[in-house]
Amino acid sequence: MRVLGIDPGYAIVGWGVVEYVGNRFTPVAFGAVTTEAGVPFEQRLDKVYEGVLDVMTTYKPEALSIEQLFYQHNQTTVIGVAEARGVILLAAAKCGIPIFEYTPMQVKQAVTGYGKAVKKQVQEMTRMMLKLEKVPKPDDTADALGMAIAHCHCSRSRLVGTPLR
Amino acid sequence: MRVLGIDPGYAIVGWGVVEYVGNRFTPVAFGAVTTEAGVPFEQRLDKVYEGVLDVMTTYKPEALSIEQLFYQHNQTTVIGVAEARGVILLAAAKCGIPIFEYTPMQVKQAVTGYGKAVKKQVQEMTRMMLKLEKVPKPDDTADALGMAIAHCHCSRSRLVGTPLR
Repeated sequence: MRVLGIDPGYAIVGWGVVEYVGNRFTPVAFGAVTTEAGVPFEQRLDKVYEGVLDVMTTYKPEALSIEQLFYQHNQTTVIGVAEARGVILLAAAKCGIPIFEYTPMQVKQAVTGYGKAVKKQVQEMTRMMLKLEKVPKPDDTADALGMAIAHCHCSRSRLVGTPLR
Repeated sequence: MRVLGIDPGYAIVGWGVVEYVGNRFTPVAFGAVTTEAGVPFEQRLDKVYEGVLDVMTTYKPEALSIEQLFYQHNQTTVIGVAEARGVILLAAAKCGIPIFEYTPMQVKQAVTGYGKAVKKQVQEMTRMMLKLEKVPKPDDTADALGMAIAHCHCSRSRLVGTPLR
């Protein structure tokens, strides 16, 4: 199966496509869509939308794995991130790609086997599974690859993540 | 000038287009885009996007007036509303319509002259200015017309709302 993981944002959107066959992972492609501060916000959203649409149409994933968004501390940021997440979900709808949501704890559990693993452990395990020399940069890209792996593992064990609301 | 006001949401998106010439308002069209509970969320976002895109291309407003979103109490709702707001801003970007954000207090001030007016007072003043027999239903539509009026008043007095982030 081919899965796209996305770490949403309005400044940096990490993305990673992995292929999962038998019990082996292959990294297909990964990167980040970035937008510049100071550009009108709706144009940043447009760049995010076109960027992820491009990834989806190029790599044709069978599923999108994306983190569930919770309200945390910085309210200004969470609203902007949610707005960006909205246009990412729209792009998936336009491409007919089913969406699966996971909590941070579910991702940690699925990737490392331990729900309270730290971010670095998840990134290192992701690197090893994909046989990459280094953890991809930026962190958003590494996290997106982890999201993709999490969905592959959960699908296999039939512990499939929450269907989107 | 012709202004589109939008009250964002993922279940009901109120919208209203008003024409402001001299010191008089004319309602051009108003309504609501609605989506059904139980439909996958990304399809609801798609319906919101296509619905507001249709309004924008049909009525060709010169500006979009939209409320600034704050984090309040119900975190699940605010994230969903922000995701819907994201696709609405994307539609405006696609149509090249400039976006102006106002706080609830700015809207109340601009429509009724009193920043602490209650919702009903804003709706009644909106009804009178537009010479409508009744306050439009649902409330989201009435509020959207108020948003449009607020931008017209603020543009005229050059107290133009915050440009989008």
